[in-house]
Amino acid sequence: MTVTIADIRAARRRIADGIIVSPCPESIPLSEITGARIVCKLDNFQRTGSFKERGARNALLRLTPAARQRGVIAASAGNHALGLAYHGKLLGIPVTVVMPDYAPLIKITTCQRLGATVVMHGRDFAEARAQADRIAAEHGSTYIHGFDAPDIIAGQGTMGLEILDQVRDVDAIVCPVGGGGLIAGLSLAVKSVRKKVRVIGVESTATENFSAALRAGRPVPRPRRATLADGLATLTVGSNAFEIARRHVDKVVHVGENWIALAILRMLELEKTVVEGAAATPLAAMMAGCLPELQGKKVVLVTCGGNIDPAVLSRVIEKGLVHDGRLTRFTVEISDRPGGLAALARVIAESGASIKDIEHDRAFSGPDVSAVLAVCTVETRDRAHIAALHRALKKNGFPLVRK
Amino acid sequence: MTVTIADIRAARRRIADGIIVSPCPESIPLSEITGARIVCKLDNFQRTGSFKERGARNALLRLTPAARQRGVIAASAGNHALGLAYHGKLLGIPVTVVMPDYAPLIKITTCQRLGATVVMHGRDFAEARAQADRIAAEHGSTYIHGFDAPDIIAGQGTMGLEILDQVRDVDAIVCPVGGGGLIAGLSLAVKSVRKKVRVIGVESTATENFSAALRAGRPVPRPRRATLADGLATLTVGSNAFEIARRHVDKVVHVGENWIALAILRMLELEKTVVEGAAATPLAAMMAGCLPELQGKKVVLVTCGGNIDPAVLSRVIEKGLVHDGRLTRFTVEISDRPGGLAALARVIAESGASIKDIEHDRAFSGPDVSAVLAVCTVETRDRAHIAALHRALKKNGFPLVRK
Repeated sequence: MTVTIADIRAARRRIADGIIVSPCPESIPLSEITGARIVCKLDNFQRTGSFKERGARNALLRLTPAARQRGVIAASAGNHALGLAYHGKLLGIPVTVVMPDYAPLIKITTCQRLGATVVMHGRDFAEARAQADRIAAEHGSTYIHGFDAPDIIAGQGTMGLEILDQVRDVDAIVCPVGGGGLIAGLSLAVKSVRKKVRVIGVESTATENFSAALRAGRPVPRPRRATLADGLATLTVGSNAFEIARRHVDKVVHVGENWIALAILRMLELEKTVVEGAAATPLAAMMAGCLPELQGKKVVLVTCGGNIDPAVLSRVIEKGLVHDGRLTRFTVEISDRPGGLAALARVIAESGASIKDIEHDRAFSGPDVSAVLAVCTVETRDRAHIAALHRALKKNGFPLVRK
Repeated sequence: MTVTIADIRAARRRIADGIIVSPCPESIPLSEITGARIVCKLDNFQRTGSFKERGARNALLRLTPAARQRGVIAASAGNHALGLAYHGKLLGIPVTVVMPDYAPLIKITTCQRLGATVVMHGRDFAEARAQADRIAAEHGSTYIHGFDAPDIIAGQGTMGLEILDQVRDVDAIVCPVGGGGLIAGLSLAVKSVRKKVRVIGVESTATENFSAALRAGRPVPRPRRATLADGLATLTVGSNAFEIARRHVDKVVHVGENWIALAILRMLELEKTVVEGAAATPLAAMMAGCLPELQGKKVVLVTCGGNIDPAVLSRVIEKGLVHDGRLTRFTVEISDRPGGLAALARVIAESGASIKDIEHDRAFSGPDVSAVLAVCTVETRDRAHIAALHRALKKNGFPLVRK
């Protein structure tokens, strides 16, 4: 089974009336922090928050009338499930989604709201998949693989054609890689139409399915590791996707969790847009200096999805502020007698920092019972400001116990 | 001094090469939660994150060559300062910004990075303004008022013309009101071109400058009150702005802080876009049921800015999760002997909730020294899930001490 540029062109016409041609604006602030001319392909603006709708709609529209009636099924804890549920509803095709037990509550309830039948089953993806196969066999429904079915790959490839239309002078496209469906379709489309545009894959250091497959010459299973880029955490890269992508992708790099978190914050602050971890990896790779050859080039970052749990986003913001030196915590010893805290608070205020929280730690504060530890969380301007605050504390008789 | 539709049309041509025609997409999920056909005019995508660039660029381009050389000055703690700084730099016009002491660190450093001279002065806006007037007199620089200068109002009005072009069948436009510059220009533009389109203003309950002016028949100063919609917290509505807007605005409503916070979260979750408090007020008004007459209508929400402090955003997200019943805290009494906590944790896990934090409170836990209070923060699905969790706790011997 293979996919051709003709399949992708056909998919583009087929799905046109149900998919948003997502905006692809240039970003001055992101260009400033990376040194490239950055453009973001904002597929997080699709109705269900990710590019997965492209493939899902294409696959659904390729079903025979009989198969449409019997419906489709997929195992997925994420965006593929949402894309299928939504377009299944639009097209009147019954959709069943099998989700493993760890699926986020918000994805479960959203799929149900979009009209899909949700079956919770299995402690991991493989168990959910096995259950989906059983249900498919029993009901005659069609199983739609989230990243390896040729119709899915052709659908995802439509994003590549859109980018070439929207950014005539693009030099390179940086695209997240998990199961490989998106980069397979996108790289095939791009290299078929404009061969000199570079296509670069980005993985999370915690996943690296595609690099492992490149080394082995075939998809190999990888142990499941936690990552902010949960959309990339498939068991392996797909075999069809791998065969296509290995021929068209110029390079694959990987980025660590801290860079992914910081990239999510930068997209939020500078681009005013919400991205999930996977969609932040292209910016993370640029910020981390993985792609020095793209300095000064016109680079499209594939912003493939925006479905991040708000609770996770809140934690990512706070970690990012700590990284930027805009939030800091330190411990000093103060006198337990009246006035000890007042003196400390004055020194902090005079340095221009703003106190968010002070906790007293008596039980673990050492041998001197007249002293107490104060654990202070304060807002600062940047790292230089933190250093100045530390100097002021020391000078005024509050040496740091722990930073 | 007045502003005409011809001024707004001229402004549109004048600023066209420096301002983004911001996207104006329809939102299916926001339509679902409000019952109207919602479109968002995303001016938070302007380079400095707000609509203020429209007026700033127009006012700068209207200066005489001599005035350009002497430069401009403004007192502002926010988006007007950013807009002036950026377009001043693009046009080679020196910009000085006087900021009151309470200005957020991030706005100060951003203005400096954009090339403006920043003067910190005054405990409130009036003191900053007085200092700006002194500097203007001394240096011969032109003072540019953030919401009441006619060139500013004409510039902001360009958004109204864009909306009419982008949404041919718009029934109503819901627009935040603070100083009144935006709604004055926008309502003048809209009513001049398509009279039957309704223009509705939204204030924060904590500001209400425009309603107060409507009642008094003229702008009246309002006490400064804290609000998430800090962009709306001007001392009064502008007098030029008021005279224009009172003739064209159909209605003004106001929304409370909780609705504004929840609207920020919904824009983030459902629209994948970052808005500041002021820009969330139109959605807040729709969600709060202030505008029942817009059910089923095509409604443009003026999403005027995205400059929210990430630390504030993080707190807004957590408050929103609490409101949705997706994060909850309760206190139960447990035995201080080994196994007390284990039993509690098991009951919570079996109910399907996920423990985020447990704090032990011994000192304030009442007369029984063998008992201790456990303050639990847990993730839940919704309010019904919380009720079920409470029942399970009670049934298993952990009655709630505090909810």
